[in-house]
Amino acid sequence: MDRVWVIPLGGVGEIGKNCLVVETDADMVLIDAGWKFPEEEMLGIDLVIPDISYVSERRAKLRAILITHGHEDHIGALPFIVRDLKVPIYAPRLAAGLIEVKLREHHLAETVPLAILEPGRRVTFGSITVEPFRVVHSIPDCLGLALHTPGGTLVHTGDFKFDQTPVYGPPTDFAALADLGARGVLALLSDCTRVERPGYTPSERVVGETFDAIMREAPGRVIITTFASNIHRIQQAIDVAARYRRKVAVVGRSMESYVSIAHDLGFLVPPPDTLYRFEEIRHLPPDQVVLVTTGSQGEPTSVLSRIATNDHRWIKIQPNDIVIISASPIPGNEETVARTIDNLFRLGANVIYDALATVHVSGHASREELKLLITLLRPQYCLPIHCEYRHMVLYRHLAQECGLPPERVILPEIGDIIEFRQGEGRKIGRIPVSAVLVDGLPLADFDEVVLRDRQHLSRDGIVVVVVALERATGRLLTEPDIISRGFIVPAGGNGLLEQARSLVRETLRRVPWAEVEYGYAVQKIKEVIGEYLYRETRQRPMVLPVVTEV
Amino acid sequence: MDRVWVIPLGGVGEIGKNCLVVETDADMVLIDAGWKFPEEEMLGIDLVIPDISYVSERRAKLRAILITHGHEDHIGALPFIVRDLKVPIYAPRLAAGLIEVKLREHHLAETVPLAILEPGRRVTFGSITVEPFRVVHSIPDCLGLALHTPGGTLVHTGDFKFDQTPVYGPPTDFAALADLGARGVLALLSDCTRVERPGYTPSERVVGETFDAIMREAPGRVIITTFASNIHRIQQAIDVAARYRRKVAVVGRSMESYVSIAHDLGFLVPPPDTLYRFEEIRHLPPDQVVLVTTGSQGEPTSVLSRIATNDHRWIKIQPNDIVIISASPIPGNEETVARTIDNLFRLGANVIYDALATVHVSGHASREELKLLITLLRPQYCLPIHCEYRHMVLYRHLAQECGLPPERVILPEIGDIIEFRQGEGRKIGRIPVSAVLVDGLPLADFDEVVLRDRQHLSRDGIVVVVVALERATGRLLTEPDIISRGFIVPAGGNGLLEQARSLVRETLRRVPWAEVEYGYAVQKIKEVIGEYLYRETRQRPMVLPVVTEV
Repeated sequence: MDRVWVIPLGGVGEIGKNCLVVETDADMVLIDAGWKFPEEEMLGIDLVIPDISYVSERRAKLRAILITHGHEDHIGALPFIVRDLKVPIYAPRLAAGLIEVKLREHHLAETVPLAILEPGRRVTFGSITVEPFRVVHSIPDCLGLALHTPGGTLVHTGDFKFDQTPVYGPPTDFAALADLGARGVLALLSDCTRVERPGYTPSERVVGETFDAIMREAPGRVIITTFASNIHRIQQAIDVAARYRRKVAVVGRSMESYVSIAHDLGFLVPPPDTLYRFEEIRHLPPDQVVLVTTGSQGEPTSVLSRIATNDHRWIKIQPNDIVIISASPIPGNEETVARTIDNLFRLGANVIYDALATVHVSGHASREELKLLITLLRPQYCLPIHCEYRHMVLYRHLAQECGLPPERVILPEIGDIIEFRQGEGRKIGRIPVSAVLVDGLPLADFDEVVLRDRQHLSRDGIVVVVVALERATGRLLTEPDIISRGFIVPAGGNGLLEQARSLVRETLRRVPWAEVEYGYAVQKIKEVIGEYLYRETRQRPMVLPVVTEV
Repeated sequence: MDRVWVIPLGGVGEIGKNCLVVETDADMVLIDAGWKFPEEEMLGIDLVIPDISYVSERRAKLRAILITHGHEDHIGALPFIVRDLKVPIYAPRLAAGLIEVKLREHHLAETVPLAILEPGRRVTFGSITVEPFRVVHSIPDCLGLALHTPGGTLVHTGDFKFDQTPVYGPPTDFAALADLGARGVLALLSDCTRVERPGYTPSERVVGETFDAIMREAPGRVIITTFASNIHRIQQAIDVAARYRRKVAVVGRSMESYVSIAHDLGFLVPPPDTLYRFEEIRHLPPDQVVLVTTGSQGEPTSVLSRIATNDHRWIKIQPNDIVIISASPIPGNEETVARTIDNLFRLGANVIYDALATVHVSGHASREELKLLITLLRPQYCLPIHCEYRHMVLYRHLAQECGLPPERVILPEIGDIIEFRQGEGRKIGRIPVSAVLVDGLPLADFDEVVLRDRQHLSRDGIVVVVVALERATGRLLTEPDIISRGFIVPAGGNGLLEQARSLVRETLRRVPWAEVEYGYAVQKIKEVIGEYLYRETRQRPMVLPVVTEV
């Protein structure tokens, strides 16, 4: 049958937790399996991962999970989902190295096969043949995937930009793209997260030029923070440091781990006599030292945050220190990053961040690059992926500028079934998907009430009213007790709690016990105390009556 | 005595809650009294206001509160602080109109005198003579203040930019500034929040040009959202609407209130036959309608947010609607604004926001303007205000570029006492200041523990363990009960709670009652249940044992 279905399980209409099903009559592959940070109101939640119940139910058809690159929003959910699926993972080499560590940590390395995807080397999964091609992004070793299916050829870009002068390895493979275009592309699934930006995203190399300008003049230490996975950025920091005869140490657990894996696999190639452990270079003169650290997002436990709060065991800001924040804040982190910068300035560092110099460039394609890709591939259909909803709409406008009729730009949403049959594409329905939240462990049946309660508790705290009654008579056996947590008792508030206690006594006295039952007493106490506290304090703590009948 | 002290109580080292003491031997004035939004971790807190205990203790010296303009971060704390101080407020006309409403709401209008400050008209408070001058900012009727004191002349800019073509009223008063400069300025207290931006901030007028380009072509309704206080922006929306024979309605309680006050005082001058109530124009053809609404920050109860979630009673997105987000997100609101934009696109609106067109300009001076001000005034000292700490450091660099020695740029922090004596300025000490948080009502003695508890509750919820013991024997009188709120019980979690209950029983049984006391039982239950729940769920809810002895 000449058809194929595309079903996004994440990464469209909301950035993060990228995950996409490509399904034919006989076979199915999953592309990427990432997590995203929880929404602001998901209090206490660690991660959100894709809901793969659709895939689990069709496990027999599933041939592989294909990974485009090693970022957490593309591989982070793997340990949670492969436990069930037990299907081989195919990934480019660096991503495979990172995944291996994850699988080992989750005791899954023995049971889940892990294979390498290489640009230009086809892999066939029944009716689906995958042809990976090189793309450039902000972590080394990224792939786009052409999927040749009975329904036609789909091209999935992964995350990409067209960097003509990448720091390491070849640029995005124009020849492969042009060749795919010549052979005919049914649908382009394109990263479009940067569709708001006109022109081209600058080459990664310009950041190296900024590093050079800074290190050439720096009178003391240079501390550079960036994303732990941005190996090219780290490579540039090391290269420039070597140029000025500085020694480099990488500090921070996650970054040390990325660097060690990238080094082992040949993706980070430090010049000789440059990269050391921190202990080895900490006593060198400051103008011979470069530290590359975690903390570009102001994460509270990262190395840079601890330096900024003067809380790091070894690294204290010294006069003449220059700190380079070589990243831009991920949406939601603006304030913690700003606070880190403020704190560093307060300690006397000179901080250079993206508002002041080109210390960061994006890893995603801007408008002209997105257009160039459409022109190279000449697809029949375009599906914007890796984006928020607004990006999809803007991408549709962009694709129209490139000559695609608007109905040929399909805006996928999570759970949409997009069918391509005899060259025609359309949404034919939806599968049910729910958010899978991870709070310590993944939560199978997640209860919305829990999040609402957490929000309530976070605003005004909780007041527990403890009452022990004699079962037979309803007589109070002890004084009612009132315990609060997170509730602000106003100054001189003993009167408030005393008054609340007497309100409880009165409430229980007013109705003869014969007519009272447990649920009623609880409800009544809740109402009376809730109203009383609001009247007196303008706060609405959660009121939890605990009535013990003895 | 030829001296004067400057003591910032807010607005330096953190944007918002602007408040500054200027004190001579005999007299004292307070400049501005605003609030700021709470930090992210201040769960449940509504506002943060300045700590004015220093001023309260010297109430006898306090002559006036001077207001530079009507933004909430300059006037919002007034109702909370004048209740105590009962001192006259001097404000420009529009700000006075806004303050009057606040005072009435708080039943303070009768007791607090409110006087008008006008540019060029001096007011003398004992040894302090105030000379207001016109500045331009993003609300009409803004003033800078020159304060002539025995210690010398201080110039406080308020919030300002140099808009050469303002929408309403005269530009920032260059002549007055040049004249002050000629007469000699001891210290310039300068707004520097936009010191990161090179060049000049564009004129407010360019936004009108964008409105014009959009409305000229708009096929349906145009919905514009901006800050409720940005009367010039609203004026421009109305003027452009009139040009294209559209009628305008302002929708949203706070904006209606600002517009009505500004209209009454002559700061908003709508062309005839343009401004209507929503009910009057809702049935007009869409291409004759402009709505100006609240919601530029994605505030959940604002008109635009309700439109975006399809939750507004009257206004539903229609095909061809254009929504203009004429604002940039205040730090911390990036995500809610982005979500509002996504939702509007989802409903089919065409949304135009700052990444796509010049639909917003700042009300603050950029680097070249900050330099121009220094050149005009030629101050002996500069004090950066209305800024985060990083802005102060950058402002010091900027002032150095203008020829000021670095020691002449004093970076004030909240509570610093900066003394100017015989023309020499320096920090001579600090007054104690604490954060005053408002949660419904202002909190006199705020307990850090409450915020920590709220954070704990918000992450993993609370588990209340209820135990009733016979006092004499320590015998359990009923089954232990376990109640949770905001805690995620895993699927099939009845077993978990049953197990927890039996752990409680066992814990109490293990130690003979003679040796047990209340506190010990509570502590032991907390430990055992806390550890058990963490082991089973990887969550750390707050465990609150409630032990009743009967």
